[in-house]
Amino acid sequence: MKSQRVEMFVCPMASPSDTSELQKLAASKKITPDTLVALVGKTEGTGAHDDWGRVWADVVLREWTAKFLDVQLDEVAKHVIFVLSGGCPGVITPHIVAVTREWVEIPDGGVRAGDDSRLVVGRAGSEPMPPEEVGRMGQIRKVAEATRRAMDDAGLTDPHDVHLVMVKVPGLSTASIKDAESRRKSVVSHDLTFGAEGAGAYANDAAALGVALALGEVAEAKLSDDIVRRDWDLYSEVAMTSSGGEKRHGEVVLFGNSPTSQSSLRIGHSVTKDFIDADGVRNALRSAGLGFTNGLPAENELSRLVHVFAKSVIPGSDQVRGQRITLLDDPDAYQIGKALGGMLIASITGRTTNYVSGGERNSHQGPPGGNIVAAVVRTQS
Amino acid sequence: MKSQRVEMFVCPMASPSDTSELQKLAASKKITPDTLVALVGKTEGTGAHDDWGRVWADVVLREWTAKFLDVQLDEVAKHVIFVLSGGCPGVITPHIVAVTREWVEIPDGGVRAGDDSRLVVGRAGSEPMPPEEVGRMGQIRKVAEATRRAMDDAGLTDPHDVHLVMVKVPGLSTASIKDAESRRKSVVSHDLTFGAEGAGAYANDAAALGVALALGEVAEAKLSDDIVRRDWDLYSEVAMTSSGGEKRHGEVVLFGNSPTSQSSLRIGHSVTKDFIDADGVRNALRSAGLGFTNGLPAENELSRLVHVFAKSVIPGSDQVRGQRITLLDDPDAYQIGKALGGMLIASITGRTTNYVSGGERNSHQGPPGGNIVAAVVRTQS
Amino acid sequence: MKSQRVEMFVCPMASPSDTSELQKLAASKKITPDTLVALVGKTEGTGAHDDWGRVWADVVLREWTAKFLDVQLDEVAKHVIFVLSGGCPGVITPHIVAVTREWVEIPDGGVRAGDDSRLVVGRAGSEPMPPEEVGRMGQIRKVAEATRRAMDDAGLTDPHDVHLVMVKVPGLSTASIKDAESRRKSVVSHDLTFGAEGAGAYANDAAALGVALALGEVAEAKLSDDIVRRDWDLYSEVAMTSSGGEKRHGEVVLFGNSPTSQSSLRIGHSVTKDFIDADGVRNALRSAGLGFTNGLPAENELSRLVHVFAKSVIPGSDQVRGQRITLLDDPDAYQIGKALGGMLIASITGRTTNYVSGGERNSHQGPPGGNIVAAVVRTQS
Amino acid sequence: MKSQRVEMFVCPMASPSDTSELQKLAASKKITPDTLVALVGKTEGTGAHDDWGRVWADVVLREWTAKFLDVQLDEVAKHVIFVLSGGCPGVITPHIVAVTREWVEIPDGGVRAGDDSRLVVGRAGSEPMPPEEVGRMGQIRKVAEATRRAMDDAGLTDPHDVHLVMVKVPGLSTASIKDAESRRKSVVSHDLTFGAEGAGAYANDAAALGVALALGEVAEAKLSDDIVRRDWDLYSEVAMTSSGGEKRHGEVVLFGNSPTSQSSLRIGHSVTKDFIDADGVRNALRSAGLGFTNGLPAENELSRLVHVFAKSVIPGSDQVRGQRITLLDDPDAYQIGKALGGMLIASITGRTTNYVSGGERNSHQGPPGGNIVAAVVRTQS
Repeated sequence: MKSQRVEMFVCPMASPSDTSELQKLAASKKITPDTLVALVGKTEGTGAHDDWGRVWADVVLREWTAKFLDVQLDEVAKHVIFVLSGGCPGVITPHIVAVTREWVEIPDGGVRAGDDSRLVVGRAGSEPMPPEEVGRMGQIRKVAEATRRAMDDAGLTDPHDVHLVMVKVPGLSTASIKDAESRRKSVVSHDLTFGAEGAGAYANDAAALGVALALGEVAEAKLSDDIVRRDWDLYSEVAMTSSGGEKRHGEVVLFGNSPTSQSSLRIGHSVTKDFIDADGVRNALRSAGLGFTNGLPAENELSRLVHVFAKSVIPGSDQVRGQRITLLDDPDAYQIGKALGGMLIASITGRTTNYVSGGERNSHQGPPGGNIVAAVVRTQS
Repeated sequence: MKSQRVEMFVCPMASPSDTSELQKLAASKKITPDTLVALVGKTEGTGAHDDWGRVWADVVLREWTAKFLDVQLDEVAKHVIFVLSGGCPGVITPHIVAVTREWVEIPDGGVRAGDDSRLVVGRAGSEPMPPEEVGRMGQIRKVAEATRRAMDDAGLTDPHDVHLVMVKVPGLSTASIKDAESRRKSVVSHDLTFGAEGAGAYANDAAALGVALALGEVAEAKLSDDIVRRDWDLYSEVAMTSSGGEKRHGEVVLFGNSPTSQSSLRIGHSVTKDFIDADGVRNALRSAGLGFTNGLPAENELSRLVHVFAKSVIPGSDQVRGQRITLLDDPDAYQIGKALGGMLIASITGRTTNYVSGGERNSHQGPPGGNIVAAVVRTQS
Repeated sequence: MKSQRVEMFVCPMASPSDTSELQKLAASKKITPDTLVALVGKTEGTGAHDDWGRVWADVVLREWTAKFLDVQLDEVAKHVIFVLSGGCPGVITPHIVAVTREWVEIPDGGVRAGDDSRLVVGRAGSEPMPPEEVGRMGQIRKVAEATRRAMDDAGLTDPHDVHLVMVKVPGLSTASIKDAESRRKSVVSHDLTFGAEGAGAYANDAAALGVALALGEVAEAKLSDDIVRRDWDLYSEVAMTSSGGEKRHGEVVLFGNSPTSQSSLRIGHSVTKDFIDADGVRNALRSAGLGFTNGLPAENELSRLVHVFAKSVIPGSDQVRGQRITLLDDPDAYQIGKALGGMLIASITGRTTNYVSGGERNSHQGPPGGNIVAAVVRTQS
Repeated sequence: MKSQRVEMFVCPMASPSDTSELQKLAASKKITPDTLVALVGKTEGTGAHDDWGRVWADVVLREWTAKFLDVQLDEVAKHVIFVLSGGCPGVITPHIVAVTREWVEIPDGGVRAGDDSRLVVGRAGSEPMPPEEVGRMGQIRKVAEATRRAMDDAGLTDPHDVHLVMVKVPGLSTASIKDAESRRKSVVSHDLTFGAEGAGAYANDAAALGVALALGEVAEAKLSDDIVRRDWDLYSEVAMTSSGGEKRHGEVVLFGNSPTSQSSLRIGHSVTKDFIDADGVRNALRSAGLGFTNGLPAENELSRLVHVFAKSVIPGSDQVRGQRITLLDDPDAYQIGKALGGMLIASITGRTTNYVSGGERNSHQGPPGGNIVAAVVRTQS
């Protein structure tokens, strides 16, 4: 029986086109064409629609990967999943995390106790999602199905072992709306933004509910087209989702812990209860197995912290712990909301190389007002 | 011998013109025309030059105060010092803090041990500062002189008992530059902004160095026109300063602890060592006497925390703990920098009603890369 | 038979609270409590949700008007219609236009030829509009009805004599959505913004279609809930509309020309065919009777130009005359779109005191890609 | 005797990396490695410091050009001058203009009358400019010297024949300031921005004065370090300048008309008298020889208009034609100022593919409050 050995390499980028750290990993054989399964990162720039930093990084990283894998550019996506989140406002260092997976024989005694299980990763693509399904049950079901197959791929059967599910799904575009309407199908929204009624927000949230459905976080009976972006009590604690109008299929990359894993890494997660909840972040670190002394991560333990993945969705209310904030009325809320998540994580991890995406208002990613935090820790053994 | 009894009342504002909480304090006699000495707060809006939220709040608060004191509008400043900092991005609740001071007889045994000394406040105006002195030694010396007199007014003699000095000084304006140059005097800058070479930045920083000089934080021999906004190793740990082109005099309001004080409040301060330093903030709370359990402020202790005053100056370097951040190149750095300070404080105090000003780059307010945090705590006795 | 004598006084404002020019008009009896019927203007600030410049100006102008009319503050709206459009980016001077109307006897021979007809103004309030009607046929019909009554009030019967209809209608709010849904009524959108699917945009556009219905610009048979913000070929050439979540009734102020009017002013309008169409602006000036020499408004004629009212809706396409522009992807499109309209008008009128509102994307106010421009000119006689 | 034949090809870009139009020009031999002398254009994005659209375009265009010329990447600059201005807010289409120059024998009768002289282009590099010269007389003199040599290269002797001089010069950087100060030299500013006292602004303005000196627009006796960014009455009417902290030499590309030129293009220029001066723009078109009918460019004539190059510097005053504008206090003034210039030009040329740079406040590029406009027209012969 084969088992996984998963590694993560955090590569700061000095510019959107900086592949030098990846190149070093390649030169040292820490990543190989056979083992590289995902590139997940934060690209510098504004994170807005006209943020060319993200686009440039995407182009350069795909070109680098094609060369590294020795495949055609349009074949890259079949081998390596890209999750690039644009915008590094504040104290978020632009970086890319290379995720590798080796398949190894389990040595004698190589199956660990459940509480010492280790990082595995699974991937899956979804069925194509026509535009009329975006933001609706069709998309939810297809993401759920892909999530289940990603669990299979990870070798996981218990949803409690899943700690982070990154999903990319189709959104809508002018062209795809036309297509749907030419076939007399309605679409969930004509707003192509990530605003409150934007197609992007609906797609992201349907994807999150798809994960929630697959993992049993939400019962299927509670789901319908009508609850998407309406019933915020339905949510996933582990889904981080994004969408693009140009995509036709969903992609899932899922992280969890398995007793058979031969990794030296372990993942955990938690959620914050509100926008300023430092305890929630610390709980995620604890969940991953980081040692605390005197209520805080021990200084020497932090060197074992490999990476943090966090959302920073803006609360839909103007109240935080009973006091008014003005973020909802701020035209720069998107950037500031993301930046604030970056500070929350950085002030606790003592570092700025954290994956923090967000800025949108309300989401089925995480509980109302709170956010998802996942952490990966290197074990001492 | 008379002694002070100082109180602080934190009043959230529901809009820039909301004086309802002040009105309640007045109705309940918690503040009276005789005791009100300062109004310090954060006004909602962008904090930019065209932020009418701050201007409107200023107008409304002055009108309210004139009525409350039964004095003419232009007499208000003689009785109550206003420190309104514009801009509440992120998780900073718009609010005003009413500071009151009563003079009371010291009761028998009313002089406390030094480590139980309590909050006192002192105020002083400065000599007029002509435009050619702005941002230079002239301004530094006059602020130092006023700071010393504010210490007198507070009844303090040891600079170590001073924990927060809020200063407002003249900046430059088109008119005042013309005036100086017509008298063949040079001015420190023709840039009227708070940018790197802006007159506003020079004025704020000269004021900070004035405080540092008065409190012995910087030796006079080290000071000259040339070091302002050049030698960042010279700084105050307690000065929070602002400036306005329309002003002619400086104003100082100074907070410290005195054994003779009859207040039930106590102030402390610390500095952060860099932009994400949560420990620095916790040290300020400790300095004020807040109890910690297990490395964090105890939940029940936080109810004793009256207020936090913090700066959030952006570091002049693009490195935080060895990793690059892109804040210095962000056109929204001013707002985001302030917002990040708000999150740092809120995530530790568990509340959003904190006074956080900043957003500018580099300052003699606090050490290079770090920031000043002062905290006021209600004592248990 | 009574007839109208209408005047417009353009008052630049030096700050959001500047009523000095209005005060001068009052002192000189140019405006009186009996004659003042509307205050229409541009307030400085960002025009965003948290633009306190507009709010402050509104408060101050209402207080001034209440005092001027000697009525209670909440009675002001019954006497004077306020149309304050926030945001003066670029070359738009903050200003308020006081509109007065006197009823005078028509002198012998006082009825002019149709092509010399003069400015009249009419006002009307609408029936209350419950939240479920916002952005739908209910709102369209009630605005149409109010527009017809405003025409009556103006003494106009032929829609071709109507050149500008300013409308304010209820939008949605969190509270009004709750109210509707508690009564099992659906609302047009849960997005409270002016974005593509925002309730504000729907309300504005339903109001524009209401005007179009009343004036016969769009046939009733073509209207339904489904075409609002879908079929851009249905539009008004004279409607400038706005909405607020707190309102319950619509308000209409309508401008046109009548042969019986004793005004010395005349109004005209035209539309631009696209976002850079200077000819469309010039045609509006011509329509109002301004003299041109050599293709341009004659220098001496411009002194007769009293005011221009223009929309600056952003085109929904990324093409202008066959070339791509990037405005649709610009996070600052709202401000920039408005600013561009200001420059288009100012570069033709040679002045910056123009009423220019807009910045939103697509609208039934004006043709697809183009905008409405109305102009008021003082006649030479 | 050899003479020039100069052509300009305007290539809209569909994205920052779009070289397809250049590729077509290359395929059709309209541009060849021998003839391509400059690429001048507007790149999409914000135009701010963190605008990666400009950087990406620069990288891609240099790579394309290196391949096209068959030279190393770092040799490109020796053959082709790049002037890329970042930021296409509003109605400015991202585009690149390929400028070609052939040397041809003058045919018999090939020397035209002065008023029918045609487009020539000249280029020159400057002496290296150490940091202590940036923004000062050293830079002014070296740009003047390079401008004179560019005139030589263009075959022009009379400054009146020069209509556009694009200059790129060194600015300051953290490193170059350190270098200067280590040699005990002062620098003009420690502010690395393009703000009022920014090193970028000083460098641009010294470059403009260098052009003015070379062309006799400003007498040498009037120039000194002290007048840079102080005496706005000293300016060039044809200089468009930019600067970069990484550069060590200046580069000049100069356009004018010569009787010996065999081009079918002609250039002209004018200045606007203030920020909304449409006449100034029309005068530039007239100066280049465009035909007008009835006060406006004739519709069929506009097809002869090849390109417009315009600055859009924001006026340093808050008054335009006697009325207040709020642009100087707008945090987005840089983008909006540039966008407004784009609208001014587009509304007159009827197209959006115009080169419009600017957004900074005050400049020696153009008269106080006004801006430079140059136009290139295809002659009918």
